[in-house]
Amino acid sequence: MRAVVMRNKQLVVDTVPDPQPGPGEAIVKTLACGICGSDLHALKHGEQMSRVSREIDAWAFVMDLSRDVVMGHEFSAEILDFGPGCERKLKRGDRICSMPMLPIGERIAGVGYSNEFPGGFGERMLLGERWLQRVPDSLPSEAAALTEPLAVAEHAVAKAGLGNGEAPVVIGCGPVGLAVIAALARRRIAPIVASDLSPIRRAQAVRLGAHAVVDPRVESPMERFAKEALAKQAVLFECVGVPGMLTLLMKQAPRGGRILVVGVCLEEDRIQPLVPISKELNLQFVLAYSAEEFSATLHALADGEFDVSAFITGRVGVDGVAGAFETLGAPDKHVKVLVEPWRSGSLG
Amino acid sequence: MRAVVMRNKQLVVDTVPDPQPGPGEAIVKTLACGICGSDLHALKHGEQMSRVSREIDAWAFVMDLSRDVVMGHEFSAEILDFGPGCERKLKRGDRICSMPMLPIGERIAGVGYSNEFPGGFGERMLLGERWLQRVPDSLPSEAAALTEPLAVAEHAVAKAGLGNGEAPVVIGCGPVGLAVIAALARRRIAPIVASDLSPIRRAQAVRLGAHAVVDPRVESPMERFAKEALAKQAVLFECVGVPGMLTLLMKQAPRGGRILVVGVCLEEDRIQPLVPISKELNLQFVLAYSAEEFSATLHALADGEFDVSAFITGRVGVDGVAGAFETLGAPDKHVKVLVEPWRSGSLG
Repeated sequence: MRAVVMRNKQLVVDTVPDPQPGPGEAIVKTLACGICGSDLHALKHGEQMSRVSREIDAWAFVMDLSRDVVMGHEFSAEILDFGPGCERKLKRGDRICSMPMLPIGERIAGVGYSNEFPGGFGERMLLGERWLQRVPDSLPSEAAALTEPLAVAEHAVAKAGLGNGEAPVVIGCGPVGLAVIAALARRRIAPIVASDLSPIRRAQAVRLGAHAVVDPRVESPMERFAKEALAKQAVLFECVGVPGMLTLLMKQAPRGGRILVVGVCLEEDRIQPLVPISKELNLQFVLAYSAEEFSATLHALADGEFDVSAFITGRVGVDGVAGAFETLGAPDKHVKVLVEPWRSGSLG
Repeated sequence: MRAVVMRNKQLVVDTVPDPQPGPGEAIVKTLACGICGSDLHALKHGEQMSRVSREIDAWAFVMDLSRDVVMGHEFSAEILDFGPGCERKLKRGDRICSMPMLPIGERIAGVGYSNEFPGGFGERMLLGERWLQRVPDSLPSEAAALTEPLAVAEHAVAKAGLGNGEAPVVIGCGPVGLAVIAALARRRIAPIVASDLSPIRRAQAVRLGAHAVVDPRVESPMERFAKEALAKQAVLFECVGVPGMLTLLMKQAPRGGRILVVGVCLEEDRIQPLVPISKELNLQFVLAYSAEEFSATLHALADGEFDVSAFITGRVGVDGVAGAFETLGAPDKHVKVLVEPWRSGSLG
């Protein structure tokens, strides 16, 4: 099959062996697959990501980068066939979503971050039958591919469990920050103050439900929060995921404040422990979602609870993926670029 | 008055001006004052401590180290006299404890970490009248000096709010770790698993209520916890406060685990954010205590709820403080060394 292959820290289009479904697995045709910030990180920092993950037994991110990896974990797909021992409750031709994971023995491998299981930047994938979720007929395949990144935000907001006396400050309005804003807005949480360097992203934040946006070079997010939220306590959502952000947010956070760390920083970071100690800060790191949250997000999407068009800003074929990674490396215009391996085309 | 002065990163005994009480202030005679790990850190890393504290507006730790500082913030004392405008509800000769803080305008200065307010390593201190707490007659002055460090632990354990399905792992059995163990034990929390390199400290941990202790070079605290606590979830108490400990504990913590950061690391630290992200860890940094917690700890001490003799392992006069700092820098035998500025003597 045709796929975008991560090889020697480059993305190349190549023909790779067709995956063959094992017991309990379905083989599916990728319909659409979003490019995630973690994919951009993994291309640069994949060695570090694999090493640290191996150390802590987090096998969903362990790859042998001397061998090929086909990335892509935010997908919708169509069932082509089943391996042995499947229950076949869904049928060939059904459109599905799935959490991007598959068991290998007692370990869970990450579809899209694995040498064994190619992700959605290729024409076909293997998925565990038990995790397949049928996409409601009313929901376009492109929108269904947003289930995964929106589920991340739904989970982060649920984990935050904002109290009545609290309100959010979302730092960074890339795909993660915008999804968090959408998840907050659909819960009618107010006010939502958001911060980003880019005027285009700030406009998207407003479109998705932010009540106030700031350019942090011009105005402090915390000062703006104080004006908007009056006596409420700020809960910060770190949605940038680059070294230094945690330190910056800990300095800005209020005494006794909470920081939800949603951005995935794959590089080593430096902190001054005295800062969070002096303020008695609470840091909650979050990752992924539960099966229930994933399913609920898919159905919320089908119920029209997310402004899909605000997220999907580009579409490419496999030949356009490397270019899209470069474009997204200096992000401004784009939020979510979808890879549609069955077509050709680049961002242009 | 005679005092131990921090000057050019050294501790020297010198005669310094007698403090004069301002409005609302009492002048007191130091009876006993514990040496805290933070004092040892401040002697080495005071510049960094002051710089970071100034950046985040935490004035209780801001010192001008080109000028003299008299440290010491874990004290009991006797009232000598009052400044103008005092209510004088307590009398001259009364023995007192106090939270080590005093207002300067709208800022709170830290007694013992301030150029203005000498701490308990000198013969006399100034304290705010409104924070004075009378020491119950039954409680020796030496024991009363433990109120501050024990209140830190009481606060940390209260902040942890351990649920029924959780149990503690205390990493580090120095003064902070031992106080945390004592605070856990008096709440009948079980099992308490504790870890320290020193066999003497492990024995003290058992004496204060730890149910199992490990030498982390020989046995993993988490494996021992699994044996002792069965299905309970470990909540880690970081009571060491040196760079690298946070990373180590994040690697050891269980998925979805919590770390209470009680040790005060004054140096920059490095973390791998992917570790806490992958496990969805929660880090709660803690500092100090409330006025209520301080008062409750003093009365718990008076009620005999702490094994005071397990904590106090040495007594020195001002002439013995520099030597005691050196001894405590490579700790093993000692837990809490008390400075009694009215006497002479060293650890010998």
